Amino acid sequence: MKAAVSYSVSILGAGRVATHLGNALFQAGHHIVQVYGRNPEKANALAEKLNAEAIHDISLINPDVAMLIMAVSDDAIGSLSAELPLINGCVAHTAGFRDRHEINSKHKRKAVFYPLQTFTFEREVDFSKVPFFIEADEADDLELLRQLAAGLSPKIIASTIEQRRILHLAAVMTSNFSNALYIVAKELLDEYGLDFSVLHPLLLETAQKALEVDPREGQTGPARRNDQGTIEKHLKLLEDKPQIAEIYQLMTNYIINTYHNKTNE
Amino acid sequence: MKAAVSYSVSILGAGRVATHLGNALFQAGHHIVQVYGRNPEKANALAEKLNAEAIHDISLINPDVAMLIMAVSDDAIGSLSAELPLINGCVAHTAGFRDRHEINSKHKRKAVFYPLQTFTFEREVDFSKVPFFIEADEADDLELLRQLAAGLSPKIIASTIEQRRILHLAAVMTSNFSNALYIVAKELLDEYGLDFSVLHPLLLETAQKALEVDPREGQTGPARRNDQGTIEKHLKLLEDKPQIAEIYQLMTNYIINTYHNKTNE
Repeated sequence: MKAAVSYSVSILGAGRVATHLGNALFQAGHHIVQVYGRNPEKANALAEKLNAEAIHDISLINPDVAMLIMAVSDDAIGSLSAELPLINGCVAHTAGFRDRHEINSKHKRKAVFYPLQTFTFEREVDFSKVPFFIEADEADDLELLRQLAAGLSPKIIASTIEQRRILHLAAVMTSNFSNALYIVAKELLDEYGLDFSVLHPLLLETAQKALEVDPREGQTGPARRNDQGTIEKHLKLLEDKPQIAEIYQLMTNYIINTYHNKTNE
Repeated sequence: MKAAVSYSVSILGAGRVATHLGNALFQAGHHIVQVYGRNPEKANALAEKLNAEAIHDISLINPDVAMLIMAVSDDAIGSLSAELPLINGCVAHTAGFRDRHEINSKHKRKAVFYPLQTFTFEREVDFSKVPFFIEADEADDLELLRQLAAGLSPKIIASTIEQRRILHLAAVMTSNFSNALYIVAKELLDEYGLDFSVLHPLLLETAQKALEVDPREGQTGPARRNDQGTIEKHLKLLEDKPQIAEIYQLMTNYIINTYHNKTNE
């Protein structure tokens, strides 16, 4: 998908988000001017892929790009933006949870460009499915963010910081915590000589089902049926694993309260 | 996929598992003799689809089928198998967590035929991806179960009841509890006027990633980084939701203990 207008974009960072986003913007036809990274090897490698200049001294960042994207760790947004020369273009961070005013106040056009997805180096990202949340002070900057995102995804949402914070929290609950449950399950199976791969079809179907059926309709299992006999036997299997038993009990209570016991919350 | 040998099979139950499994066995070329269901309408509908006889009086079940599959609720296994005439063929239940000896002792050839998947009426099941766990006393019956499953899936595992119980528990933790986390996330987003569909790509990617990367390698997020600043701010957003805050705290602690604090468990 080619963007209608080609913009000049520079990227701070050479990690997972910088790499995937940089690639996607480059593929969409934007001109990636510079890539800055603390790790020179990574910055060089990414810059080469994006036909950009690798920068290792942040004071050399060109202040006149249309958009400078800070795809860096949350805690570096403030300090790194302070080290930058004054940027005339729009400066956007990509963090789900941080205020755009953490970008140093000398930059006048502060923005957020947040792709809601989990990024892994080894896996390609299909940005056409990724929602982009954008924020800026001025309508012109919102329009610029919208045009940049439009080359990547049809799903672009102008959000408030309150909405973005809840989104980030919801993303942690579903993605990070589901993955933690996969770790728990794998540990249980390992102990009994069973391969985690037997759960793969179930994991995938559980996620796919939630895309089609409201998860409240799609809930199944002993807690959904308030099947205390099975719940007790499950807990007995976890007798020597107090931390996992506690997770089991709490998630079970949540489901029972949701369906059987609505006064509890 | 056609089975090498066609067997005569009857089915007790007309719910989700009975429907999906019956269809798959019928498609694989087996002869579905009878379908019994408490709800006459459902039993008739399923029997018609499977070119079988619908039975509403359990004493009329033909005792000479190769396999009688009890795809009924866990608690009905004992009582319903007691009401059956003595079955000469193999009697298998499909429950993840129940002992095959819950099948009434008058039936000599008790077995388990457990497809590890979550079943929904509205969604087709690709059985070729579903692992089947089988148990029986006699080698001949194990072979029969294996041949029945082989028409549906390449993944057939002879299990012990201990393994099956852990599998069932692990399935609950990953599938039922992940879905409960989706419910939590949806409630949070609803409150802020955001549509749950913005999380769909993330849910799907999280599951797909776990099929390729060990979930222990694939863990990301604030707890993985032990980012206490973000964790505290997330908890502040949950101040008026004690039950969700507790889930957040416990899952976060599990992840932190897994990566940062190995002495805690």
